[in-house]
Amino acid sequence: MISFTCDYTQGAHPRILERLVATNFQQEPGYGEDIFTASAHEKIKAACGCPGADVYLLTGGTQTNSTIIATMLRDYQGVVAAQTGHIAVHEAGAVEYTGHKVLTLPQREGKLSAQDLKAYLEGFYADGSYDHMVFPGMVYISFPTEYGTLYSKAELQAIKAVCEAYKLPLFVDGARLGYGLMSPACDITLQELAGLCDVFTIGGTKVGALCGEAVVFPAGNAPEHFFTMVKQHGALLAKGRLLGIQFDTLFTDGLYFQIARNAIDRAMELKALFVSRGYDLFLDSPTNQQFILLTEAAAKALDGQVAYEVWERCPDGRAVVRFATSWATTPEQIAALSALLP
Amino acid sequence: MISFTCDYTQGAHPRILERLVATNFQQEPGYGEDIFTASAHEKIKAACGCPGADVYLLTGGTQTNSTIIATMLRDYQGVVAAQTGHIAVHEAGAVEYTGHKVLTLPQREGKLSAQDLKAYLEGFYADGSYDHMVFPGMVYISFPTEYGTLYSKAELQAIKAVCEAYKLPLFVDGARLGYGLMSPACDITLQELAGLCDVFTIGGTKVGALCGEAVVFPAGNAPEHFFTMVKQHGALLAKGRLLGIQFDTLFTDGLYFQIARNAIDRAMELKALFVSRGYDLFLDSPTNQQFILLTEAAAKALDGQVAYEVWERCPDGRAVVRFATSWATTPEQIAALSALLP
Amino acid sequence: MISFTCDYTQGAHPRILERLVATNFQQEPGYGEDIFTASAHEKIKAACGCPGADVYLLTGGTQTNSTIIATMLRDYQGVVAAQTGHIAVHEAGAVEYTGHKVLTLPQREGKLSAQDLKAYLEGFYADGSYDHMVFPGMVYISFPTEYGTLYSKAELQAIKAVCEAYKLPLFVDGARLGYGLMSPACDITLQELAGLCDVFTIGGTKVGALCGEAVVFPAGNAPEHFFTMVKQHGALLAKGRLLGIQFDTLFTDGLYFQIARNAIDRAMELKALFVSRGYDLFLDSPTNQQFILLTEAAAKALDGQVAYEVWERCPDGRAVVRFATSWATTPEQIAALSALLP
Amino acid sequence: MISFTCDYTQGAHPRILERLVATNFQQEPGYGEDIFTASAHEKIKAACGCPGADVYLLTGGTQTNSTIIATMLRDYQGVVAAQTGHIAVHEAGAVEYTGHKVLTLPQREGKLSAQDLKAYLEGFYADGSYDHMVFPGMVYISFPTEYGTLYSKAELQAIKAVCEAYKLPLFVDGARLGYGLMSPACDITLQELAGLCDVFTIGGTKVGALCGEAVVFPAGNAPEHFFTMVKQHGALLAKGRLLGIQFDTLFTDGLYFQIARNAIDRAMELKALFVSRGYDLFLDSPTNQQFILLTEAAAKALDGQVAYEVWERCPDGRAVVRFATSWATTPEQIAALSALLP
Repeated sequence: MISFTCDYTQGAHPRILERLVATNFQQEPGYGEDIFTASAHEKIKAACGCPGADVYLLTGGTQTNSTIIATMLRDYQGVVAAQTGHIAVHEAGAVEYTGHKVLTLPQREGKLSAQDLKAYLEGFYADGSYDHMVFPGMVYISFPTEYGTLYSKAELQAIKAVCEAYKLPLFVDGARLGYGLMSPACDITLQELAGLCDVFTIGGTKVGALCGEAVVFPAGNAPEHFFTMVKQHGALLAKGRLLGIQFDTLFTDGLYFQIARNAIDRAMELKALFVSRGYDLFLDSPTNQQFILLTEAAAKALDGQVAYEVWERCPDGRAVVRFATSWATTPEQIAALSALLP
Repeated sequence: MISFTCDYTQGAHPRILERLVATNFQQEPGYGEDIFTASAHEKIKAACGCPGADVYLLTGGTQTNSTIIATMLRDYQGVVAAQTGHIAVHEAGAVEYTGHKVLTLPQREGKLSAQDLKAYLEGFYADGSYDHMVFPGMVYISFPTEYGTLYSKAELQAIKAVCEAYKLPLFVDGARLGYGLMSPACDITLQELAGLCDVFTIGGTKVGALCGEAVVFPAGNAPEHFFTMVKQHGALLAKGRLLGIQFDTLFTDGLYFQIARNAIDRAMELKALFVSRGYDLFLDSPTNQQFILLTEAAAKALDGQVAYEVWERCPDGRAVVRFATSWATTPEQIAALSALLP
Repeated sequence: MISFTCDYTQGAHPRILERLVATNFQQEPGYGEDIFTASAHEKIKAACGCPGADVYLLTGGTQTNSTIIATMLRDYQGVVAAQTGHIAVHEAGAVEYTGHKVLTLPQREGKLSAQDLKAYLEGFYADGSYDHMVFPGMVYISFPTEYGTLYSKAELQAIKAVCEAYKLPLFVDGARLGYGLMSPACDITLQELAGLCDVFTIGGTKVGALCGEAVVFPAGNAPEHFFTMVKQHGALLAKGRLLGIQFDTLFTDGLYFQIARNAIDRAMELKALFVSRGYDLFLDSPTNQQFILLTEAAAKALDGQVAYEVWERCPDGRAVVRFATSWATTPEQIAALSALLP
Repeated sequence: MISFTCDYTQGAHPRILERLVATNFQQEPGYGEDIFTASAHEKIKAACGCPGADVYLLTGGTQTNSTIIATMLRDYQGVVAAQTGHIAVHEAGAVEYTGHKVLTLPQREGKLSAQDLKAYLEGFYADGSYDHMVFPGMVYISFPTEYGTLYSKAELQAIKAVCEAYKLPLFVDGARLGYGLMSPACDITLQELAGLCDVFTIGGTKVGALCGEAVVFPAGNAPEHFFTMVKQHGALLAKGRLLGIQFDTLFTDGLYFQIARNAIDRAMELKALFVSRGYDLFLDSPTNQQFILLTEAAAKALDGQVAYEVWERCPDGRAVVRFATSWATTPEQIAALSALLP
């Protein structure tokens, strides 16, 4: 059985495991004060072009999102997100659990538009009773989005301009950041992205690590006592070295980007394969998640041999399905799919 | 520099790393539905003698404690703990962050007594205004305690009896459980412990794993939708295999207990060493944390060569210090300490 | 200046003030244990036809809603409401502040439909990843709605049937309950309403009281320790007599319904007036809130003499405005409006 | 039956009721934008000698305390209070419900000392692991305390000096403020108190109002969007006039202080009575709450005729009881007690 169900079906890039083995008995302080974490911080800052950034390494995505959001918002504020934003739908209410509302706006292919954001903010402050309502306190977007789509540089600049006009921090959830940046459709660099937002994450879990999300405050603008907030949110790992070693390895010699590129190359092959066999795309994703309208015949042919995720059933018998490639997907897996696909 | 500062200065037991390497490219579902996690659950249930237990694998200690406590309490309830309980002092208010008070009681050598617990509960319900107060909703103890001490079986039974009389679940925080069970002073087995509490944890982080705490509800009594609560608390790992593999390895062929035993053996050697050189013990700990009254001369002699944790300065110039051994402490490290200690 | 801006511009029905004066020096226990509160409870239970109901008297609407919702939900649950529901929009995130998501569904004229509710619930449980999402835990509707509209008995029964199928409690926010029940369009009695929901409120603030919302659990189904939860939410009044006296007076000799009827009579006159002068209704409300499309000429004519609330500006220069009548609105006020309106 | 059980057994000062009646049909905006509230604000600012103060009128004490504390603290902070502080014991965990720990210190006769506060703060920052702990974020004291005792001006200045050294806001809970200020033992004026703290409350509920607590930020230092936070906490009254009228009346011609003085005069008579009959005082309270060691014989003599609150039973058969006088206590009530007391 080959699985394209998601991008976290396998362990870690072998270099990470080698490094864990090699450093295993070295004694280091806990809670992120080890030398691996320090080195990872430096390499991440260099890669982002932000020598003054504050960097923190947390364990998982939902944890990271809710810690960032709860810490940056005041009690009277909520976080603005697309209706399909991960925090709005698939994080079990983790943001609300911290006391904050997710203020949802319409989306197109998973993306929030600067226009919709501006219209919402204008409407909010035009409403005479806005002080009876939840104030917008920050803006959350994901890059790539939950649908695998990407914001263009111009779109991000437009969103950033609206955020600045309303003094709202912009948070970019980069759980799959590498897969965005390595897409041929991406017109923005990591450094440019860092310059356009107030906080962003660099996802490790889905891009070659066993676990781990790096949080970057590009301007050294981490909220006061963020360390304590990480602890309070249960997100502080005693053996911080586990995260330090992983990110240090991923940001050595560009490994993070190389392996992200592999996922994109395989995804493009996979998309080309489906298109060439006459399948319709549910949407044209430029990243590692591909959304296909799969026929019943194809589903039958793949049954028991290739796994993928079903998102929705269509009235015509087809299904919207997701095939995800990853840092570990091999050309052989694509070939096997090709051999089975009608 | 040899460090006895804590029991999480090194990575993981080599067998864990070997297993991570060996299984690395095996494709498995996420969120704890992998076969390693399933196997770990079975082995843990067997070790605890609780075939019907519910088992969950979480990442870190504070996270685990606050998830368990917040999920088991109703809004009008707090958790009863010793004043020195980890949740009361060193978890950055994680329990309060979930909306619940930690109701603290006096401690002796880190332990809560059944008498104090009973007196508090009697007093609470005797107070005419108790419905203006936070109701006791569960009892938290740690085994070993934050001072390395252990409850005897009789003490645990007495606490359990009070809990039962007041229908309060008993939660045993086993962040260092192995180091408690393997102490020569321990008169209780894992199976007996499981029979005496409503939920307990088996700490991996401090006993040979890179990260991970197993949560055991011995009677299959996990709160409804505990999985979703784990997600909401940011405690659900996408690559659950990381936890599954570690606990599966630790509970194969008794590895968890063997390596815990190593820490105890080294700790007893270390204690004997200090005593033989005439140092006073701050308290007589039977587990891997040893609390010594270190003289200034000794501090000077060890300076730069042996690290430990300072808890408190005494007026006479001595300091209460903690030396912690671990699964990875070697006889050579004890010998090196012996060579340096005046 | 005559104000139709809302239904809380004036004090209390004179009989309430008389009663406050008459009982002022009578010594009574605090926290709702006074005889007035006991009497109010009995009269409310009788009026609702629920001799076994649990009744609590709280102070304000947002407070009451968030106390009820937070207390009835488990942590993994949210409350389902129409997008226009008061809790979703105008309570400053009070529900989210307690850790719970408001799960919003489409609305028509402020109303939730049984079909939409059913479709959402079916979709939720059909989604393979629902345990990563916020569970629906109760259903909130307002009667009348925020747009002054009413559910028919059949609509309520249909919603209740869906709730029962999914074991979801139904909460009816009756901040303006009297104005709903006294509408000529209302086809349900208070007793029938009580039989169709699991908890509802009887608004006093907007129907003749200085403050106060009665919470009724018709089947005696108040959550455990609801009193303590009321205290925890800061909703317990030391001088509970203030609420007891008010509700006792309102539920003596049907005062609540008589004065609610006055508001409806005035509202119908007001609506007829606008219609007769050729104004369009934004929607045809059967209760005390009337939504008119007011022309610029009319706005000019009323300027400085009649106050109302502007909800929205239309592109054609008109505005959606709200005129609210109340228990205290007089025929003279309607006549004065009539004299001014072009 | 005469009741001395608490200071909220009766309604409101008659002038308040007269004023409610007189203004009843005057139309005013809701949510505290009425002219009565505006007038009350001005009078309170004048009485406090703080022309630039921010004033808010809330309904009840627990609500007010938790709204202030939750709004002024950051998530990583807790509030420091005496172990006997009302927020620590008798508010059903309302502070913790907002996510914050109450950091308790020892008390003497209900009072926190500057020395204990300083020692705690020094110890906190001297602890190497303080960033794993809840940061002290503000200091809460009550004036008078829960035991009826008062801080001297020097004690308040000393506490304030420690607060300033650590940049901690000082919050004075004045639920019974009038009874403190009017005590013969009080050596501080309202203006001086306002100058010594960052926020304080002026209790109405216990000093002649039906309900209501005024929150004063003396330096105009209300937290941003405090209005919205009041709404979020369910503490915003639609008919703000109810609070406005009450405080406006209480602060007209010094009524608040006159009626507070009555309670003190009666309390001193009551204390003298008990002392003259040979009863021991549990502590020597200078305010309206008197704590007496009541003999069994006295309890028997008063049974069914005079009510008071029992705090604790002593081994010798006596009981610590509280007699509270109020703005409404009459000389006749004291005389009646005198006639019955053995």
